[in-house]
Amino acid sequence: MPTETTSPRVLIGPDAPVWLTDAVIAGGGTTVTDTSQADALVWRGSDHRRLSALLTDAPNIRWVQLGAAGTDAWAPTRVFDDGRVWTSAKGSYSEAVAEQALALTLALLRELPRFARAKRWLPQAGRSLFGSTVLVLGAGGGIGAEVIRLLNPFRTHLLRGYREGITDSQSGETLCLSEALSAAEVVILATPLTPATRKLLGRAEFAVMKRDAIVINIARGAVIDTDALIEALTEGTIAAAGLDVTDPEPLPEGHPLWALENCLITPHTANTPEMLQPQLARRITDNVIRFTAGHPLIGVIDAAKGY
Amino acid sequence: MPTETTSPRVLIGPDAPVWLTDAVIAGGGTTVTDTSQADALVWRGSDHRRLSALLTDAPNIRWVQLGAAGTDAWAPTRVFDDGRVWTSAKGSYSEAVAEQALALTLALLRELPRFARAKRWLPQAGRSLFGSTVLVLGAGGGIGAEVIRLLNPFRTHLLRGYREGITDSQSGETLCLSEALSAAEVVILATPLTPATRKLLGRAEFAVMKRDAIVINIARGAVIDTDALIEALTEGTIAAAGLDVTDPEPLPEGHPLWALENCLITPHTANTPEMLQPQLARRITDNVIRFTAGHPLIGVIDAAKGY
Repeated sequence: MPTETTSPRVLIGPDAPVWLTDAVIAGGGTTVTDTSQADALVWRGSDHRRLSALLTDAPNIRWVQLGAAGTDAWAPTRVFDDGRVWTSAKGSYSEAVAEQALALTLALLRELPRFARAKRWLPQAGRSLFGSTVLVLGAGGGIGAEVIRLLNPFRTHLLRGYREGITDSQSGETLCLSEALSAAEVVILATPLTPATRKLLGRAEFAVMKRDAIVINIARGAVIDTDALIEALTEGTIAAAGLDVTDPEPLPEGHPLWALENCLITPHTANTPEMLQPQLARRITDNVIRFTAGHPLIGVIDAAKGY
Repeated sequence: MPTETTSPRVLIGPDAPVWLTDAVIAGGGTTVTDTSQADALVWRGSDHRRLSALLTDAPNIRWVQLGAAGTDAWAPTRVFDDGRVWTSAKGSYSEAVAEQALALTLALLRELPRFARAKRWLPQAGRSLFGSTVLVLGAGGGIGAEVIRLLNPFRTHLLRGYREGITDSQSGETLCLSEALSAAEVVILATPLTPATRKLLGRAEFAVMKRDAIVINIARGAVIDTDALIEALTEGTIAAAGLDVTDPEPLPEGHPLWALENCLITPHTANTPEMLQPQLARRITDNVIRFTAGHPLIGVIDAAKGY
């Protein structure tokens, strides 16, 4: 991408809220409303026909920033094949999801759900995250990396799970899943849902875990075998679960998981629409700075792969 | 203190659990049971007469490590005036308390108490700590410093409250309390309880705070005017409170705070006895290493001040 020597002119569509305009300006860009004047486009809509029509009259637009992280719905339209640089928001929404993972982890270790329900002074209880053994499955992804960053101050003994295997951060050894599960006090699921990760945690996996272990799922509900989880929580095979995602989802009223006091459920709310906004703003500011300097943009879409 | 060229011989009393022995050995020390052989003493008891008697027959003991952080009960006995180096565990217990502050903060921002009570899938809700403005009152103490360290990954706009005033970490400006309170989304109390901090937050202070602000108290209950807090939480002057300490404490059954759904109360359990153990072990290991190397010890008691 050629270096811009002047402030890039950025068109924002389909509408241009103040916070988006501010994000462009914070990166050194100027906003324009005339399509033919624009060097770049920030597009937060989902209507790809409207976007395609707009781009027909915009020969100078060399970069399109989308507001979504997932672009699987766009790929079949071949809109990414037009020779422009396309970027999505992929990776920019990791912070809030990782934060929810930490919030659930600390809440369960500190027994906050029980204290939240109590109406009287109970005996002291709770465990500390400091120095505990934490297995992060999906450590190679953006969310997993951010979870690990948030865990850093707690001097945890970290077991990092990648597609290729699990690495013990202290010994450097490679562990198999059951070895890692049997060592961990906290298991955080941050994997994508694929055929390989569907029901990754089931009866056999819970069976090898510590009885005081907790499981946190901020990935996809189906990474856990729900029936096996209910059994493990009921029988005390593990201590507790914190779920921002469930299978089925939404979890219907009367589902057995609702009745378990050692299961903390949040309604897939690690990222609310309000949280997305500052994260997208940050990404756009970063990318306008990079576009101006001629540096590689963050979140470039591979047209061949479609994401 | 002269440099030890050999492994220091450490007596542990009044009893010597394995984890204490391990902590000494991890620092390069050896444990002895013969008082006259000991170079140093680790003493976890509260009976100062017994300790004084032991020290009478221990001419070689040049350093005494106490297990307690607070030594106010010991000072009047003038036991610290014997020419030996005395250390307490002061500062070593900050981590767990700071962790509780972060746990309560994230739980309230993420509305975990409400979700913990729910038995059905609620609409998305919650706020992120990322980028929010956080006022830490008592930033100069060990717990305040540790709170700030745990907040680091969240890119917060930090307002640090010291005895001398409040510093805005971004602008460098000094703020008065009401300026800082009016700017903060999260207020964390980590001050000691002194005449200056008693009822530091009362009706006037809650009145200037944001309506969506949360207050976290891991200091002492009396730093907040409880009646004013009940009023602020009831009328929505502030959004929520997370209290590990209360005034009165323990909070009696039927107290109005128990009825408030926007008040999360934990029973002074930031540090449980089980959590203290690894923290004290760490301090002892550190100090044995320092003692061996002739470096200044951590937590040295000033005999004149008594702490």
